[in-house]
Amino acid sequence: MIRNALLFVLLAASIYATRAATADEGMWTFDRFPSALIAKTHGVTIDQAWLDRVRQSVVRLQGCTGSFVSGDGLILTNHHCVEGCLAQHSSRDKSLLESGMLAERREDEIRCATQIAEVLVATEDVTARVAEAVRGLDERAAKERRRQTLTNLEQSCEKAEPLQCEAVTLYGGGQYWLYKYRRYTDVRLAFTPEDAIAAFGGDPDNFQFPRWDLDMALLRAYAGDRPAETPNHFTLDFAGPKTGQPVFVAGHPGSTDRELTVAQLTTLRNLELPQWLLRNSELRGRYIQFAKTSPSAARIVPERLFGLENSIKVRRKLLDTLLDDDFMRRKGDDEAALRRRVASNPKLRAEIGDPWSRIEAAERAQAAIFLRHTYLEDGAGFNSRLFRYAREIVRAAAERSKPNAERLREYRDSALPELEQQVGAAVPIYTELEELTLSFSLERMREWLGPDDPIVRKLLATESPDSLAASLVTGSKLGDAAERLRLWRGGASAVDASRDPMIVLARDVDPEARALRKRQEDEVDAITEVAGEAIAKARFAVFGTNAYPDATFTLRLNPGTVQGWDENGTPVEPFTRVDRLFERATGRPPFEVPESWQKARTTLDPTTPFNLSTNNDIVGGNSGSPLIDANGRIVGLVFDGNIHSISGTYWFDAAKNRAVAVDTAVIREALTKIYKADRLAAELGVTR
Amino acid sequence: MIRNALLFVLLAASIYATRAATADEGMWTFDRFPSALIAKTHGVTIDQAWLDRVRQSVVRLQGCTGSFVSGDGLILTNHHCVEGCLAQHSSRDKSLLESGMLAERREDEIRCATQIAEVLVATEDVTARVAEAVRGLDERAAKERRRQTLTNLEQSCEKAEPLQCEAVTLYGGGQYWLYKYRRYTDVRLAFTPEDAIAAFGGDPDNFQFPRWDLDMALLRAYAGDRPAETPNHFTLDFAGPKTGQPVFVAGHPGSTDRELTVAQLTTLRNLELPQWLLRNSELRGRYIQFAKTSPSAARIVPERLFGLENSIKVRRKLLDTLLDDDFMRRKGDDEAALRRRVASNPKLRAEIGDPWSRIEAAERAQAAIFLRHTYLEDGAGFNSRLFRYAREIVRAAAERSKPNAERLREYRDSALPELEQQVGAAVPIYTELEELTLSFSLERMREWLGPDDPIVRKLLATESPDSLAASLVTGSKLGDAAERLRLWRGGASAVDASRDPMIVLARDVDPEARALRKRQEDEVDAITEVAGEAIAKARFAVFGTNAYPDATFTLRLNPGTVQGWDENGTPVEPFTRVDRLFERATGRPPFEVPESWQKARTTLDPTTPFNLSTNNDIVGGNSGSPLIDANGRIVGLVFDGNIHSISGTYWFDAAKNRAVAVDTAVIREALTKIYKADRLAAELGVTR
Repeated sequence: MIRNALLFVLLAASIYATRAATADEGMWTFDRFPSALIAKTHGVTIDQAWLDRVRQSVVRLQGCTGSFVSGDGLILTNHHCVEGCLAQHSSRDKSLLESGMLAERREDEIRCATQIAEVLVATEDVTARVAEAVRGLDERAAKERRRQTLTNLEQSCEKAEPLQCEAVTLYGGGQYWLYKYRRYTDVRLAFTPEDAIAAFGGDPDNFQFPRWDLDMALLRAYAGDRPAETPNHFTLDFAGPKTGQPVFVAGHPGSTDRELTVAQLTTLRNLELPQWLLRNSELRGRYIQFAKTSPSAARIVPERLFGLENSIKVRRKLLDTLLDDDFMRRKGDDEAALRRRVASNPKLRAEIGDPWSRIEAAERAQAAIFLRHTYLEDGAGFNSRLFRYAREIVRAAAERSKPNAERLREYRDSALPELEQQVGAAVPIYTELEELTLSFSLERMREWLGPDDPIVRKLLATESPDSLAASLVTGSKLGDAAERLRLWRGGASAVDASRDPMIVLARDVDPEARALRKRQEDEVDAITEVAGEAIAKARFAVFGTNAYPDATFTLRLNPGTVQGWDENGTPVEPFTRVDRLFERATGRPPFEVPESWQKARTTLDPTTPFNLSTNNDIVGGNSGSPLIDANGRIVGLVFDGNIHSISGTYWFDAAKNRAVAVDTAVIREALTKIYKADRLAAELGVTR
Repeated sequence: MIRNALLFVLLAASIYATRAATADEGMWTFDRFPSALIAKTHGVTIDQAWLDRVRQSVVRLQGCTGSFVSGDGLILTNHHCVEGCLAQHSSRDKSLLESGMLAERREDEIRCATQIAEVLVATEDVTARVAEAVRGLDERAAKERRRQTLTNLEQSCEKAEPLQCEAVTLYGGGQYWLYKYRRYTDVRLAFTPEDAIAAFGGDPDNFQFPRWDLDMALLRAYAGDRPAETPNHFTLDFAGPKTGQPVFVAGHPGSTDRELTVAQLTTLRNLELPQWLLRNSELRGRYIQFAKTSPSAARIVPERLFGLENSIKVRRKLLDTLLDDDFMRRKGDDEAALRRRVASNPKLRAEIGDPWSRIEAAERAQAAIFLRHTYLEDGAGFNSRLFRYAREIVRAAAERSKPNAERLREYRDSALPELEQQVGAAVPIYTELEELTLSFSLERMREWLGPDDPIVRKLLATESPDSLAASLVTGSKLGDAAERLRLWRGGASAVDASRDPMIVLARDVDPEARALRKRQEDEVDAITEVAGEAIAKARFAVFGTNAYPDATFTLRLNPGTVQGWDENGTPVEPFTRVDRLFERATGRPPFEVPESWQKARTTLDPTTPFNLSTNNDIVGGNSGSPLIDANGRIVGLVFDGNIHSISGTYWFDAAKNRAVAVDTAVIREALTKIYKADRLAAELGVTR
């Protein structure tokens, strides 16, 4: 395996310039997928028809990816991508997360109130139009005009076509695009296994491999209360992939920071990551301890805890990466080399200037406002779902009274339907968790901003974090979806008239929070955007345009092969099998095999491949992505990466970065022998 | 104030060489206190008689400092230094931490079972003897021989005199000393205020100034069940100090890392501090959430939580300091300059070699064993008081069967009486907290070492962290002091025969834990000790011997003056007054003024100085130190530093590093008007 990987590096090195992708690195947009290189290195043909078929069969979910796997809108994705939906249908007395769910009949499929699904139908390069619009403006004015231009482009696009149009920035500002999606707002859940097997090994095994996780779920897109017609869809090959086989991941990687400058990475290392980790490690402790207080507490905590622990694991590895002086030195060397190339070319120097120094200054400005921005505008001081509703309602009311192009981006017309769906969805709110998180965040705000910060002083003049959180949470009616919708639809006059304490709080904090956002946008973001564009231009000029952009939760295609890796001299095999699952179980969560599996154990083929690793270049957002063979068939379901894949946010480590997927073979085995999900298995093309 | 500080910097710069102390920087040993410099800069005379009197009046407590303040063994120290004693006399139903305590009569003073107090009687330089003993040995052999030599020196010393003898390493190995103490093992508590006023402002105000904390306690040393005779003691000047007045802090600063190399600082920054902070931030959350489950939980948590939050604040500021690239660059520049000086001097080069590169290699070795050493040997995986007892008992039994000089250092004969006092003290053990911390630490051990680590795998083969912690804690009898003493005294045969699950666990883990310790000592400590000696020699050779050593919890004297500082352009005044305490109160913990103060409010002089700041160079361990005027009278009680003082671990920031003390004026006001502690006030020399 390792030899293959090295071979690719050597081949790639002869083809690519410095800083361009090497080996199987790369989250390629579909318009510049390196088919020729793939033909050469992997011996397979990826033509335009293949790309179009795949593009139209992949689905974007919130924060995740899925794929159509039948003509009736059936979507294959991860269990952990539908945890929110499962929690919405759970209560203090029952947890669907724990029990899993199976819709025996189509009419038993349950609506995920906040879920949407989108398919990328078309893309349009609008770089030239944006450049034209901002020509000659200074950084702040350019930022404002760019925002307006993108909003106007989206608006015209949506008037012209029955699609969702979204402006997309690629290459840190090197390109601007309109991405056009077909959107499904009625998405229902058809099947998930129990979380004990979907996430067998829990947090300890998260981002580890070998693994034994059936991290799968089946959703269905509906249109007009009927299953959506999805002629573009994948078929599954239940034989699964083989070691060394070329495989492709199509999906929506959320974000990477490979294009950031050293100054930006340093801010992440020194400020953002430590502050986030300290804060959320404590929250983790509070959740865990609270979960021990009663069975109902134990039932309602996991939905929040699993996501939190996942984020903690990601960020501690990100911090490790940035604390690695070798890594930072390489980044610094690359940056210095590019700066020299620019400086030594008079034409380029005149065009590019010195965006790196501009960013360094912006990062100093960032440091000055970082803590207050984090707590007051980013919401770290008001960790409460009720508060987030309140802020959405308060801000949307104010923003909607302005012309579309002048609003904060997230309240542009094209975004409002989804926001209204989120705000108006009837989902359970647990006051005990609200008080826990709100009290915690108020306490930490006091710690980090200090008791004498004007807002802290005002909020806690005669209150403790506990007492204030309790009165806000018990006094607010925002737990009621109807009340939220009333305020949302009532707009500014309804919001102004409200005495709901959470609305009052959001209203009171808003001027200061908006002022901090304005400073962040004017003093930091405006500079880094313009500087980012300049650096992108420098890269194109020096290294050519044969490069992939940082991930932006837009559709990408990543080549690779099924392979393990070498972990400090120990080879890690790329496949696990069913038999080892039972051997690894301890009988205690999170290493407890659920009863359904124990019962069916003897019926299972112990040699069935379970999970596998590949060298596709993925990150968070790729969860639920189909693992596709050269023929365009699904052979696996991506759900994770190994621990080294986390560093993929900053660079691709060809030797160690691996994606982790569920083998289609175990999907068939589970659906047919354990869950008896005959209806869905048939729809997926399982034949006995 | 600020002008004064700058003046000292300028003066000092003309007198001292690079890297020697500047301004009032310096934790001086009494044998080389810079009296001449002090006479010049502060205009006061510190002669040998002054030094001797002060030395014999200062008391070393565990982790803290105190001072004799009467001829009958009365000791003035901080409230936070006696939290352990208060907790030992508390229960689920009452908290002395909360209520405070006052012994109306001498016979009401309560014994602090684990407390000892020590006075430094004499010191002896043994550098030459150690050098002679290790001459010609390689690093590992030298480490072993040095350890034996120091133990033997202590042993002969104690045979010769009725004193406790302790070997002390100064200048990172540049000097070795024997420090000889008079020890008091019967220490009793006479007075503390409520923690609401001792630590008014709680964690939010910790390491902040302005402050309003009466962080004081009165202990008494006993000998033969009667108050110890302490003819050497301080008198208090209840007028307190004045702005600009020279003041001295005598005490036992715990440890500083100003002599560490860049490689060692990098290990702290990349490994030790982030790992510690992540882990203990979570523990903080667990404690806080647990404290909310019942009134008794709320009563037993604070003793642990206060100390933990203090450590978190310290370490997050330490991490910030090390993440400051300017600081690291300065450290790097200093180091490079010293290396160049050594390299350019053939004689020095031959003698010193390249200890910096040796340390770099040792730090790489450290990184390889860091996590397992932290969890298995350092105890991060077994966070439980019962486990710590078990390990002490198991290890002491094994070690005591060896000749004194061959034991692990902490089990040498001279250390055993204190260990036995700790192990045998009847103190409350709360099983609910034991389970909390043990389950937590087992869970984190599994997270960081991985479920497949052999020890993790063995411990958790069929258990969860919760179930294992519960069975260990409920199954162990080590909560009973008599049982602990039985095993301690029974030695190896009693330990081998024990089936106590905590003893069994400590026994099972011990071989691997000891192996890790061995690797740490052989592959890391042995190298850094020899290299540290070489670097100290290089410093002496290049900069002269006019420098103070890193803090080592041995007696030091720090000069300074009463002064505030400039915080980002805002001057901070050096005194607070009683009136502002009441204005700052919110009525909610930790900003709630206790009832005793509210009742007496009208009787208090509102202009009484409360806390003050000085530029003495202190760190943790100086808590409880007397703040002494030029006449050798106590004018304040050191209890904290400002936030910048934390960076004092790595460097002294003359512009911003400030110590924080309780003014003697408020001590008199409180003792007489609020607590009516007439007996003790009279003993302290208060006259109405």
